[in-house]
Amino acid sequence: MKITDAKIYLNSPGRNYLTIEIHTDEGVIGLGDGTLNGRELAVYSYLKEHLFPSLIGRDPFDTEDIWNFFYRGAYWRRGPVTMTAIGAIDIALWDIKAKALGVPLYKLLGGSSREKVLVYCHASGRDTDHAMEEVAKKRELGYKAIRIQSGVPGMESIYGISKEKDSYEPAKKGELPEEESWNTSKYLNFVPSLFQRARDEFGYDLHFLHDCHHRLTPNEAAQLGKDLEPYKLFWLEDTVPGELQEGLRLIRQRTTTPLAIGEIFNTVYDCQTLITEQLIDYLRMTVSHSGGITPMMKIAAFAAIYHVKIGMHGPSDVSPIALSACLHVSRAINNLGILEYMGYSDKMSEAFPHEIHYKDGHLYTGNAPGLGVEFNKDFAEKHPYQKAYLPINRLEDGTMFHW
Amino acid sequence: MKITDAKIYLNSPGRNYLTIEIHTDEGVIGLGDGTLNGRELAVYSYLKEHLFPSLIGRDPFDTEDIWNFFYRGAYWRRGPVTMTAIGAIDIALWDIKAKALGVPLYKLLGGSSREKVLVYCHASGRDTDHAMEEVAKKRELGYKAIRIQSGVPGMESIYGISKEKDSYEPAKKGELPEEESWNTSKYLNFVPSLFQRARDEFGYDLHFLHDCHHRLTPNEAAQLGKDLEPYKLFWLEDTVPGELQEGLRLIRQRTTTPLAIGEIFNTVYDCQTLITEQLIDYLRMTVSHSGGITPMMKIAAFAAIYHVKIGMHGPSDVSPIALSACLHVSRAINNLGILEYMGYSDKMSEAFPHEIHYKDGHLYTGNAPGLGVEFNKDFAEKHPYQKAYLPINRLEDGTMFHW
Amino acid sequence: MKITDAKIYLNSPGRNYLTIEIHTDEGVIGLGDGTLNGRELAVYSYLKEHLFPSLIGRDPFDTEDIWNFFYRGAYWRRGPVTMTAIGAIDIALWDIKAKALGVPLYKLLGGSSREKVLVYCHASGRDTDHAMEEVAKKRELGYKAIRIQSGVPGMESIYGISKEKDSYEPAKKGELPEEESWNTSKYLNFVPSLFQRARDEFGYDLHFLHDCHHRLTPNEAAQLGKDLEPYKLFWLEDTVPGELQEGLRLIRQRTTTPLAIGEIFNTVYDCQTLITEQLIDYLRMTVSHSGGITPMMKIAAFAAIYHVKIGMHGPSDVSPIALSACLHVSRAINNLGILEYMGYSDKMSEAFPHEIHYKDGHLYTGNAPGLGVEFNKDFAEKHPYQKAYLPINRLEDGTMFHW
Amino acid sequence: MKITDAKIYLNSPGRNYLTIEIHTDEGVIGLGDGTLNGRELAVYSYLKEHLFPSLIGRDPFDTEDIWNFFYRGAYWRRGPVTMTAIGAIDIALWDIKAKALGVPLYKLLGGSSREKVLVYCHASGRDTDHAMEEVAKKRELGYKAIRIQSGVPGMESIYGISKEKDSYEPAKKGELPEEESWNTSKYLNFVPSLFQRARDEFGYDLHFLHDCHHRLTPNEAAQLGKDLEPYKLFWLEDTVPGELQEGLRLIRQRTTTPLAIGEIFNTVYDCQTLITEQLIDYLRMTVSHSGGITPMMKIAAFAAIYHVKIGMHGPSDVSPIALSACLHVSRAINNLGILEYMGYSDKMSEAFPHEIHYKDGHLYTGNAPGLGVEFNKDFAEKHPYQKAYLPINRLEDGTMFHW
Repeated sequence: MKITDAKIYLNSPGRNYLTIEIHTDEGVIGLGDGTLNGRELAVYSYLKEHLFPSLIGRDPFDTEDIWNFFYRGAYWRRGPVTMTAIGAIDIALWDIKAKALGVPLYKLLGGSSREKVLVYCHASGRDTDHAMEEVAKKRELGYKAIRIQSGVPGMESIYGISKEKDSYEPAKKGELPEEESWNTSKYLNFVPSLFQRARDEFGYDLHFLHDCHHRLTPNEAAQLGKDLEPYKLFWLEDTVPGELQEGLRLIRQRTTTPLAIGEIFNTVYDCQTLITEQLIDYLRMTVSHSGGITPMMKIAAFAAIYHVKIGMHGPSDVSPIALSACLHVSRAINNLGILEYMGYSDKMSEAFPHEIHYKDGHLYTGNAPGLGVEFNKDFAEKHPYQKAYLPINRLEDGTMFHW
Repeated sequence: MKITDAKIYLNSPGRNYLTIEIHTDEGVIGLGDGTLNGRELAVYSYLKEHLFPSLIGRDPFDTEDIWNFFYRGAYWRRGPVTMTAIGAIDIALWDIKAKALGVPLYKLLGGSSREKVLVYCHASGRDTDHAMEEVAKKRELGYKAIRIQSGVPGMESIYGISKEKDSYEPAKKGELPEEESWNTSKYLNFVPSLFQRARDEFGYDLHFLHDCHHRLTPNEAAQLGKDLEPYKLFWLEDTVPGELQEGLRLIRQRTTTPLAIGEIFNTVYDCQTLITEQLIDYLRMTVSHSGGITPMMKIAAFAAIYHVKIGMHGPSDVSPIALSACLHVSRAINNLGILEYMGYSDKMSEAFPHEIHYKDGHLYTGNAPGLGVEFNKDFAEKHPYQKAYLPINRLEDGTMFHW
Repeated sequence: MKITDAKIYLNSPGRNYLTIEIHTDEGVIGLGDGTLNGRELAVYSYLKEHLFPSLIGRDPFDTEDIWNFFYRGAYWRRGPVTMTAIGAIDIALWDIKAKALGVPLYKLLGGSSREKVLVYCHASGRDTDHAMEEVAKKRELGYKAIRIQSGVPGMESIYGISKEKDSYEPAKKGELPEEESWNTSKYLNFVPSLFQRARDEFGYDLHFLHDCHHRLTPNEAAQLGKDLEPYKLFWLEDTVPGELQEGLRLIRQRTTTPLAIGEIFNTVYDCQTLITEQLIDYLRMTVSHSGGITPMMKIAAFAAIYHVKIGMHGPSDVSPIALSACLHVSRAINNLGILEYMGYSDKMSEAFPHEIHYKDGHLYTGNAPGLGVEFNKDFAEKHPYQKAYLPINRLEDGTMFHW
Repeated sequence: MKITDAKIYLNSPGRNYLTIEIHTDEGVIGLGDGTLNGRELAVYSYLKEHLFPSLIGRDPFDTEDIWNFFYRGAYWRRGPVTMTAIGAIDIALWDIKAKALGVPLYKLLGGSSREKVLVYCHASGRDTDHAMEEVAKKRELGYKAIRIQSGVPGMESIYGISKEKDSYEPAKKGELPEEESWNTSKYLNFVPSLFQRARDEFGYDLHFLHDCHHRLTPNEAAQLGKDLEPYKLFWLEDTVPGELQEGLRLIRQRTTTPLAIGEIFNTVYDCQTLITEQLIDYLRMTVSHSGGITPMMKIAAFAAIYHVKIGMHGPSDVSPIALSACLHVSRAINNLGILEYMGYSDKMSEAFPHEIHYKDGHLYTGNAPGLGVEFNKDFAEKHPYQKAYLPINRLEDGTMFHW
């Protein structure tokens, strides 16, 4: 089997996606996703100009070799643009392989380690009351695990909370990113009360999660972790900026609140200290931003040696193609923790008809060969790419801060 | 003195045992035990086919050389099957030596460091009330140290708890292992209340122990350890799977609840990091699965250097022969912690008439030469081996999990 | 697809092999190998009595779940007998999967990372002259990498050297293992001259390897490593006994001679310190003794993170079935170092007709579906198992020593 | 069996010895040795006044308990006086046990790991020529391993070399210690030439050893070790003062010359870093100065885990009683390196008739029950104790230095 062509599509059925197709001489077409929120065009160029030409004529079964061709061959390795581009191709190749062999993807990844994959959803409120309402709604939908975020008294806006509507998209359309503002003290003073309220109202049977969005120092994170211990979180996510792996040591020494990080990681070298020193409980790397299924399977196996579980990033910037890749990996590996799931709008699902289905707190893969996702090009063409950015964040005195 | 013959017997006086006899030219016969719950037949072949022929003609006093002949000479070293087979022989050789010299075994192991050995028993209840009843019963029997396990609300079954009767045997007869199901959150939310209740009812004079059966991650174990600190456990056992010794570091850094592990270890290399870094308080290696008395005495001495005490595995899968070996070692070494003791049914004691006797929370060796255990072959022959397995355990979503 | 039956065959077409077949409801039959030199009968029982019954009815594609069922579900984990038994099953399941999908095995392991796999052969001489003759012969056969072993002046016999004939089998038939004798000083004084001679005669274009068979202390190994530095070995193998991973630290600090070890390892926990501290250059774990293809692929990926390459054990105790598994893995992974290859006698190849073919220093997989190996049961039945053992080794004063 | 009496004898059949007898109600008498060169009277008092009274009435088989009674019970632990006193008792108790059971001592220590024990002798010359003559003499006596010491040009005297006669006794009779003088540079400049000459004359078949008597710094020792590498010493002994275990790290990192130390150690805590970091190849602790057979067996087993061998101190300050204890331990343990042996004068052997016999480079235990040594009290009484001291050592400028 030979690769004959590779195509790329930017589209925006509600939000921007970068979709690729890899064509073969046997007519099998594989789908991949290279969405990188607010940096799509760089991935587009990276793929179209620098990677696609090298694909033609190769055997799509040689995923290990092709991955290394693009990773080791690139000289300038790592980073989100590079790894997302490689990931898009790797996903598409695995889609081809599974379709060519007539089996759902997980069958090629070691088979089924479970029928269904535990997911967590988002409950985000403008304030505590609103957040509790959202939790209640999600519980009714059957979710067993719910990430709770809330507006913080005294802060105008915050990541994860839409000011107008229920469905939240962090990326805003426009030529320039928006600016937000942040106050760590207000945040730290508020969050424990949010979870105290949640446990009071909902008891301890539901799993609760929380995301700090990399905005704390290690010591602040340790403080928050300790303050939250009575509320037994499933995890506390992205406590500190992830570039300094040793930054998590201090937190780990001082709180037993489970820690998760990784959606901004792109290779195993972003987390090998976190894993071997067991500084985290859950690794949140997602397939498309980590270079694809090939490295993700290896990283999951590496994490398993050190008791670290996989809990992949999966909100709507992860398209149905990329989420299906995450879902098949999650079904196959033994050390699954959980998978993030926000669902998709009707428009998104019309653009990417898919077999992923939710029931009673879990996702199911379906049994179609490959990823089980299609790409409705006609519909997508009607929804062209529109420039959009994640916000920028400053402290109240104007200091540039982490978003 | 020369070894003239070695014989092997599979028998099932209530549960399966693998019993060996080593015969000598002076008529002294030594007894050994090679029981490995649910894997007996592999040990049987290993002994009968691969080790016994090399025993003939050797001097049974050369335990160090014979042990090394089978361990160093095997090329393929370590692991439960290999070490249990070697252990069966080593126990029988020490039995021969002590019988030939006319002294109880402990006299050859440095003599008596105490008259009686502190033991702990099991109090296992279907729920907290039932567990408390069992604790009360055991206290009346004089036990000073009691392992408490209980059914967990919302979980159908759990290790250590018999659904029907009081005496618990984890191995179930049949061609296939049973499958059980596990939920860590329910377990973690429940256990502290169990010990709060136990301390409320029984005060702080009794020693309480608890077994996690290797089902936690390091962080979960640290959490549980911290939650249990007010109840001052004697030990928290088998918190995490034991293959990764550095997995205990995290727990140790974050809780002062005493830690015990080791029933699944087979050589000193399974615990040298645990000991030299003092990550545990009690080493639970048992004589028969650790290659016998020869290595166990060395390991106990090694542990003593680093303040680690010995608290051997001793439920009924440890036959009276193997338990007597544990008891004589426990009597002889200085750094004894405690010994596990479940007692034996009448049938078991008829198959293995023995000098081990319980009184007021302690076990006594008796004064017969050697191990002080006999093997009633006629009775044993009437109770032939019946295939049985330890259960398999899955998470509620079907994930294969630790049993 | 469902597993319907599992069969086991002990046979001896020149040497002993343990061969298994797993049958399915679709008629596909997978082959696996559970040979464990001199301990075959224990693996036989482990498989036949304890594992096979649990296979029936399972989907052979669920290799990850089945592997965990036998590894995590066994309670008594690790060790050569256990892991070789699990490995036999895992190899057979991957053979079924590849046959069912109609592709050679490497296609399911990430495809082809190279057409051909570099191998090393053995050149073993009774003395230096004879060893040089053997090197010359092997060079003429096209080998690019040659392990050189030689009889040592003043020592009667040594591992790796046949006293009578050219083809060497370490296991000798009989009810008892042979005993050999060892003198470390003579060995250390001799080996550098062997490689000085080899470099003088053959220059630096060939790769030379040497195996110490675990017979040195860390300091002796460091000494030998330093003495051999001028002769630029491809690797120095099995310097010290492998149970104590930190035993390699000292060697690593003091010599740049590349180090290889691992044929006696059975799980990743036997080498995680060696890998994360980068104490070795090549990991020599072999598929069948390491629990199969499933864990071997994970271990190879783990090693790659830390610059460690894979150079699997592959002499004739690794049957064509097991070697083919090694060869397909070696073809698929990126971090291949080399593969050991001794070739097979006509009888062995008649028992296991196979697609493995050698040309010009490399092995090729062939293109048949699955492993590309058949099992000629009729022929094998005519060559029944004959008990055989690896030798035992003592120092000259009678001390039990490593073989 | 009960201890009824304990007696102590200072005697000087050529040099001073402290001999003890422990009597029992069954008439068995055990012999022990508490010689501590130049500090005998403190051990005498320690034993007679502080330990003996506590022995009466105890069972001599309880060696573990009695040892802990004197070690853990002493509050002021460790140090040569304390541990030699405890060692004298422990040796005598093991002598009693073996005599009572009618077996040679090694039979109670795990049996025979070898028939004969490799020993090294001393060849000490006033200069290189003289030293070579001594080596030749010892080679003719069959020794396979020879410690070579020599007078150093420009230095008046040196440890290990008698100025007048062949047999060297470091302790000099008199009320005050002699003073010697030392120059490290002269020593370091000289020693490599001594071994170059020895290898030139005697080739590489003999084992050569050398003792630095703790007079170097770590860096000087590393230098000497590197300078001696071409001469492949069996070991380089006592390079630096032994109190600072980390002091050996530097040497170890920089030379592969094998290192030995330990005759001045008294407990395992004097060497646990040396062992776990594998900083030495041979541990030279001797039975009588290490608290006896009980701790020595444990320490040997501990050392074995980390590839460290035992090569006990055994010159004539180690009486036949103490040497026999060393010899039986050396025969029993697996990880024997070598044993030091200087032989005894006729007078010494008349005082202590013994079964120890030398042949062809090895020592043999004999088969008498117990240690196989007697104490000729009548003869000893005719040779009463005479005060004697080890010398004192100063640098040439008068600085007090290590002896």
